[in-house]
Amino acid sequence: MQQVVIVGGTHGNEFTGAYLIKKFDRHPHLIQRSHLQVSTLLANPKAFAANRRYIERDLNRCFLTEDLQNPTLTSYEDQQAKWINQTLGPKGNPQVDFILDLHSTTTNMGLTLLLPSLHPFNLRLAAYLSTLHPLVKVCSLNTDRESSVLRSLTPLGCVIEVGPIAQGTLDATLFQQTETLIHATLDYLNAHNQSTPLPSPTELTLYQYLEPLDYPRNDQGELLAMIHPQLQFQDYQPLNPGDPMFLTFEGDAIAYSGSHTVYPIFINEAAYYEKGVALCLTERVTMTI
Amino acid sequence: MQQVVIVGGTHGNEFTGAYLIKKFDRHPHLIQRSHLQVSTLLANPKAFAANRRYIERDLNRCFLTEDLQNPTLTSYEDQQAKWINQTLGPKGNPQVDFILDLHSTTTNMGLTLLLPSLHPFNLRLAAYLSTLHPLVKVCSLNTDRESSVLRSLTPLGCVIEVGPIAQGTLDATLFQQTETLIHATLDYLNAHNQSTPLPSPTELTLYQYLEPLDYPRNDQGELLAMIHPQLQFQDYQPLNPGDPMFLTFEGDAIAYSGSHTVYPIFINEAAYYEKGVALCLTERVTMTI
Repeated sequence: MQQVVIVGGTHGNEFTGAYLIKKFDRHPHLIQRSHLQVSTLLANPKAFAANRRYIERDLNRCFLTEDLQNPTLTSYEDQQAKWINQTLGPKGNPQVDFILDLHSTTTNMGLTLLLPSLHPFNLRLAAYLSTLHPLVKVCSLNTDRESSVLRSLTPLGCVIEVGPIAQGTLDATLFQQTETLIHATLDYLNAHNQSTPLPSPTELTLYQYLEPLDYPRNDQGELLAMIHPQLQFQDYQPLNPGDPMFLTFEGDAIAYSGSHTVYPIFINEAAYYEKGVALCLTERVTMTI
Repeated sequence: MQQVVIVGGTHGNEFTGAYLIKKFDRHPHLIQRSHLQVSTLLANPKAFAANRRYIERDLNRCFLTEDLQNPTLTSYEDQQAKWINQTLGPKGNPQVDFILDLHSTTTNMGLTLLLPSLHPFNLRLAAYLSTLHPLVKVCSLNTDRESSVLRSLTPLGCVIEVGPIAQGTLDATLFQQTETLIHATLDYLNAHNQSTPLPSPTELTLYQYLEPLDYPRNDQGELLAMIHPQLQFQDYQPLNPGDPMFLTFEGDAIAYSGSHTVYPIFINEAAYYEKGVALCLTERVTMTI
């Protein structure tokens, strides 16, 4: 666990990570640790300069192995992904050990750690970070399919997803809380490398990804409803069968029709309207590590 | 006061107004009134389809008379402004009497009425609407300079600015509250035309625009600070000399250095980072109408 990369600006209009990278580049001593090699990456500088999520294609969906190896994919983001794969990867046999990718969201997900897998190292790190602030939540995206996100270049690592923050803005409180989480992560990795691991609880509350749900739409794909007021900003709160989920523009409530209680996240994420995602369902589990 | 136009989507990523226009177009009876001719306009359909504020140039800065008459201005938004000026205007001698332009903001401005002038008719309407909901605030942008916004095509009218809403998202509560304000405005105008004016208070609290303030920046124009946590979402609250206004990325507070209490609005508006505006100062006055 020697080589650590902190990544920001993978999405150009998520300012928190991008401005943290710029801060660390001005003050490199902040991220120096005795037993780590820490570097930074502003992943999509062109999109950051344009204040857009991406220029041609979502960079954080460009990291499938077959796409990285496909010479016919030549968009700006595909080129950028291939360059990042050369610099940090290659995927499957990377030069770096741990990627910490900084994102923000318009949803009320607080300080969310998105884990790529249930690898015990990731779980212990997440359990440690969970003790630092009540807003820290741990979510696992563990699936059978290969991930296409930047962070998937390394087996270990974490996405920090903070919100609510409107795209193209900074929130000073969440900026500082994110920086605190980064320092705690580096401290944890550094202590691990010194064989003096920081103590972490043996129980972890984990929100395990189930499936995305789209908005009701008409045949042309146009929205027919909004997130219901009772669900807005209620990320990580239980959603029970029969609870209101959407509100049509005409004012009619649409209930959650599932058969058991779920815990929605990414409720009303701006970037997911175009992806056909109104919210993502998770189940809440308690794990013993 | 016969011809009324409700405008949405002047900024393509401000969904509240755009989806209200689409709703009214599906259900035209909702905006019919006995003594009014009400129509709708989705002002920047190309930007709405692209989920961007604008394609080439901010449409809501394209309505200076000299720009509308300048044949060398040929951007998409300049062309759109000229078409809107032909359809609703021309500016100075318009075909319509009253424009209600629907906007949203990432700031905590609630249900703000932006008045173009202190015309008694606008003030009475605003005073009436103020009685309907505690979130309604009235702000005057009255200046000596010609306005470049779409709404300036007519002497009378109003901008409804609702927030906080992240760009590219809908908030169901604010959607419904905005619709309620629109209906109340139409009812007020309709009653006026029937010579049975709806009663409005004789006192009005008005936030009178003073000046914009930019973020601290370096020589390259890069941000050096964020809105201070104590000021974030505090639109319309008093800001006193010495109160913290910004927080540098290094964690140092920067105080408001003015000589008297002001009431900031548009605090941390996403669309204003590029315009060099961190917040706008207003003074609070009580007017007798």
